[in-house]
Amino acid sequence: MRVLFIGDVVGNKGVSMIKNYLPKIKQSVRPQVTVVNGENATAMGRGISLSIYKELMSDGVDVVTLGNHAWSNNEILDFIDDAKRLIRPYNFPRRTTPGKGYTMINVNGQQLAVLNFQGRVFMDNLDDPFALADELVDKLSQQTKCIFMDFHAEATSEKLAMAKYLDGRISAVVGTHTHVQTNDARILPGKTAFLTDAGMTGPADGMLGMRPENVIGRFLNQRPARFEVLEDGRGIISGCFVDIDDKSGHATHIEPVMYTDDRMS
Amino acid sequence: MRVLFIGDVVGNKGVSMIKNYLPKIKQSVRPQVTVVNGENATAMGRGISLSIYKELMSDGVDVVTLGNHAWSNNEILDFIDDAKRLIRPYNFPRRTTPGKGYTMINVNGQQLAVLNFQGRVFMDNLDDPFALADELVDKLSQQTKCIFMDFHAEATSEKLAMAKYLDGRISAVVGTHTHVQTNDARILPGKTAFLTDAGMTGPADGMLGMRPENVIGRFLNQRPARFEVLEDGRGIISGCFVDIDDKSGHATHIEPVMYTDDRMS
Amino acid sequence: MRVLFIGDVVGNKGVSMIKNYLPKIKQSVRPQVTVVNGENATAMGRGISLSIYKELMSDGVDVVTLGNHAWSNNEILDFIDDAKRLIRPYNFPRRTTPGKGYTMINVNGQQLAVLNFQGRVFMDNLDDPFALADELVDKLSQQTKCIFMDFHAEATSEKLAMAKYLDGRISAVVGTHTHVQTNDARILPGKTAFLTDAGMTGPADGMLGMRPENVIGRFLNQRPARFEVLEDGRGIISGCFVDIDDKSGHATHIEPVMYTDDRMS
Amino acid sequence: MRVLFIGDVVGNKGVSMIKNYLPKIKQSVRPQVTVVNGENATAMGRGISLSIYKELMSDGVDVVTLGNHAWSNNEILDFIDDAKRLIRPYNFPRRTTPGKGYTMINVNGQQLAVLNFQGRVFMDNLDDPFALADELVDKLSQQTKCIFMDFHAEATSEKLAMAKYLDGRISAVVGTHTHVQTNDARILPGKTAFLTDAGMTGPADGMLGMRPENVIGRFLNQRPARFEVLEDGRGIISGCFVDIDDKSGHATHIEPVMYTDDRMS
Ligand SMILES: [Fe+2]
Ligand SMILES: [Fe+2]
Ligand SMILES: [Fe+2]
Ligand SMILES: [Fe+2]
Ligand SMILES: [Fe+2]
Ligand SMILES: [Fe+2]
Ligand SMILES: [Fe+2]
Ligand SMILES: [Fe+2]
Repeated sequence: MRVLFIGDVVGNKGVSMIKNYLPKIKQSVRPQVTVVNGENATAMGRGISLSIYKELMSDGVDVVTLGNHAWSNNEILDFIDDAKRLIRPYNFPRRTTPGKGYTMINVNGQQLAVLNFQGRVFMDNLDDPFALADELVDKLSQQTKCIFMDFHAEATSEKLAMAKYLDGRISAVVGTHTHVQTNDARILPGKTAFLTDAGMTGPADGMLGMRPENVIGRFLNQRPARFEVLEDGRGIISGCFVDIDDKSGHATHIEPVMYTDDRMS
Repeated sequence: MRVLFIGDVVGNKGVSMIKNYLPKIKQSVRPQVTVVNGENATAMGRGISLSIYKELMSDGVDVVTLGNHAWSNNEILDFIDDAKRLIRPYNFPRRTTPGKGYTMINVNGQQLAVLNFQGRVFMDNLDDPFALADELVDKLSQQTKCIFMDFHAEATSEKLAMAKYLDGRISAVVGTHTHVQTNDARILPGKTAFLTDAGMTGPADGMLGMRPENVIGRFLNQRPARFEVLEDGRGIISGCFVDIDDKSGHATHIEPVMYTDDRMS
Repeated sequence: MRVLFIGDVVGNKGVSMIKNYLPKIKQSVRPQVTVVNGENATAMGRGISLSIYKELMSDGVDVVTLGNHAWSNNEILDFIDDAKRLIRPYNFPRRTTPGKGYTMINVNGQQLAVLNFQGRVFMDNLDDPFALADELVDKLSQQTKCIFMDFHAEATSEKLAMAKYLDGRISAVVGTHTHVQTNDARILPGKTAFLTDAGMTGPADGMLGMRPENVIGRFLNQRPARFEVLEDGRGIISGCFVDIDDKSGHATHIEPVMYTDDRMS
Repeated sequence: MRVLFIGDVVGNKGVSMIKNYLPKIKQSVRPQVTVVNGENATAMGRGISLSIYKELMSDGVDVVTLGNHAWSNNEILDFIDDAKRLIRPYNFPRRTTPGKGYTMINVNGQQLAVLNFQGRVFMDNLDDPFALADELVDKLSQQTKCIFMDFHAEATSEKLAMAKYLDGRISAVVGTHTHVQTNDARILPGKTAFLTDAGMTGPADGMLGMRPENVIGRFLNQRPARFEVLEDGRGIISGCFVDIDDKSGHATHIEPVMYTDDRMS
């Protein structure tokens, strides 16, 4: 099967990039299933709402993943338990976190497990992503060999460590969170596809999606600042696609995807 | 001269502790000058407003210092440049920061320099507090030997390092920020008084002044939370006083101060 | 029962403070059991060795706790599994960590559980200390109500949050790691004794036990530095004692302990 | 002029990649000047030695930049003041740091300023890279418009903020430190070339150059670990080249460079 993954969707511009360009990308990439990170999908660029989740689903997304901004829009607490295809990082505290950290989806008769984990280096104090991924992958392997992880993390070392740790037991580890696509898509020796970061989707000319003035201002004055999503200018859509052998779960191909809307009309 | 210093005033309770108990403390301690850290003095426990600054001054405070929450209440940008006795950490970026990082105050004919600096370990990326303090103390020493620093910092090592670095050149280094008074008031070999943290002033039974539920909840669920100042229960007022020899600027005595309102009526 | 707790023992000086002064302190405090944090007990001030562990035990210590420096001296991997009264933070990764995170000790016919946990704020990415403490305290409560925790953590908020979280279910939470004793020993409403930090034991005039030059130098030049334990000057021994009602496990008294060797001969 | 930049050279393998493949890359890219980040160039992967600096220079490198590992090999303190073409991050403390943070090099009769700065987000507490870069670029602009910066930083936001802050006043900002090349080389509106990270040079199949076992082990057990450079397997060489208009200093082209030695013989 071919899995299309799209990195952090930021603000209205990000959501409209999905609406306007996902169909075209699908026509060219021809994935069987589409996974999108939606942790920045509200108009404020923080968290997700029920209406945006539904919009993404109706625009052709099959699974929505999240990250450290999962809870930034409080509304999520009301609907995440009912949102079948919305997953949040698995390693948030087990006792206190609503929602789920993975989902199983039927792709032309073959089960695909989509997992969402979050790193800890320079990030929140979550539960051990390595120990929990080890355990979860063991469990899910009894149902399917096709397992795809969105690993939402800051440090390149933690992302690569996860991929190498799971190499041969999972189909792909694709990183998110830095909003900048890396140039290192490859298949590891055990046949796990890896990309350090898929990059972002939304305003192309901002500061990782936000208006530059406030972000730069904060570096200059070290005072708290409200960041706003950049509304104007070009849009970008970033991600990758991975080919997985249904039987073995081995990745056979990974390729980055990146378009800006001035190059796509 | 005797300097009374009061640590982080938190919320309405903190401000009312100053109003109600500072006079009594002054009667017993008999300071010539009173310095109060006001970085948490708004009702929200974040930043300071013009009216609270004025209230503190009219309740007998001579100088108000700040910290990492200096800018949490935006209103400060409008009045800090005119607030003669309000200082913010000196080592915020020089080019972009309003207000000033020290003030000179006349104490019975003797000048006292009050300095506010902020640490960097586990905190904001400010300018080098060691290099800047070295330079500023050199400059101010030409006007007075009586120099008092509120060093707003997290790590015990950074606070002690600052005190030892300036030992013999400054009258006192008193730490703030952790909201917990330490039991290590002493005079260093060079005659600089030191206390790692002065402790806080406000609600006595909260989480460093805040309602416990939300703070504990955040440790349990790792989700963003709004912290609110605890309104009820006992109040506490914490700090220390330092005796400084006017001529030499040497500290001759340092003593912690801590009262709760159930023990003070 | 009365529990004497002594904070981070640093270097040879720290170990000799235990040897020379623990007997005198015991004579005055008269504890039934003595717990000492030994994470800095080697001559280098990092980790512990088998010979130092044995020395502490033969000098009258009943249980040794550790912290983030538990593994700084590699030798520990060889003996921790056999060291009956040596515990390391419980919330190191379960699958990969030798040793144990708590111990049960018989105190005049009554069981006392001694627990060691480590915080995560500004520290290592360990497993959730709140969730694990909750679970462990539940389990141990079936054996004894007398439960004492050394919570090795940096942030005052995390330490107090743990104490309030466990208030009423545990006899005492005493913090370590900052090497500076706090002035807030108290009994919380549920009858759990609390002290943010017990302070350190060893060289009294260093930088938290280390030679000041290198530590200050590192703040000035931001280059890596080797820290060495200060060998000369006065020694300090810091901690607290807690009275626990054997039946209920409630704390009835907590009191800080601090001596320097120039005041103890 | 065309500037070739090569990202963090790691260990013996990295140095030998320069020796063996830089000539071939130069033949194809035809740069007028070559800049290499050497912060990991020792056999241990930490810091640089005089002999390796000389080897890099004799293998065709014109300027060597550094980063947070600048001081990891102590030997540098002995030779950096005499090493004409070796620069360390400009924003280490001014009063205490040997060496220099930029160099001027003559490129076919045109001056090129090469600058090295380090970020602060998730890194050391250095001086303000934004304020200092602003000031330095102002000063250097009076001598040349051709200014190239290696910005050694962790966070994508800080790197992009620096590039946008200097956009139009500097020829290029190229990031290093994450050891993973990003896929976002572009020319900003003001004609400053930008690449978030140039990637690394050395062992292709390790953990950012190091042996995977120890790095993964550290994520699994949270104990201190010695990391060693991976010696065997393929090598990689990563970087970019930038075309700068000599008169205006504007970038006219930026292009990533990445080869592995199995694809280059
Ligand atoms: Fe994001
Ligand atoms: Fe994120
Ligand atoms: Fe505060
Ligand atoms: Fe603060
Ligand atoms: Fe310690
Ligand atoms: Fe510690
Ligand atoms: Fe590096
Ligand atoms: Fe680096």
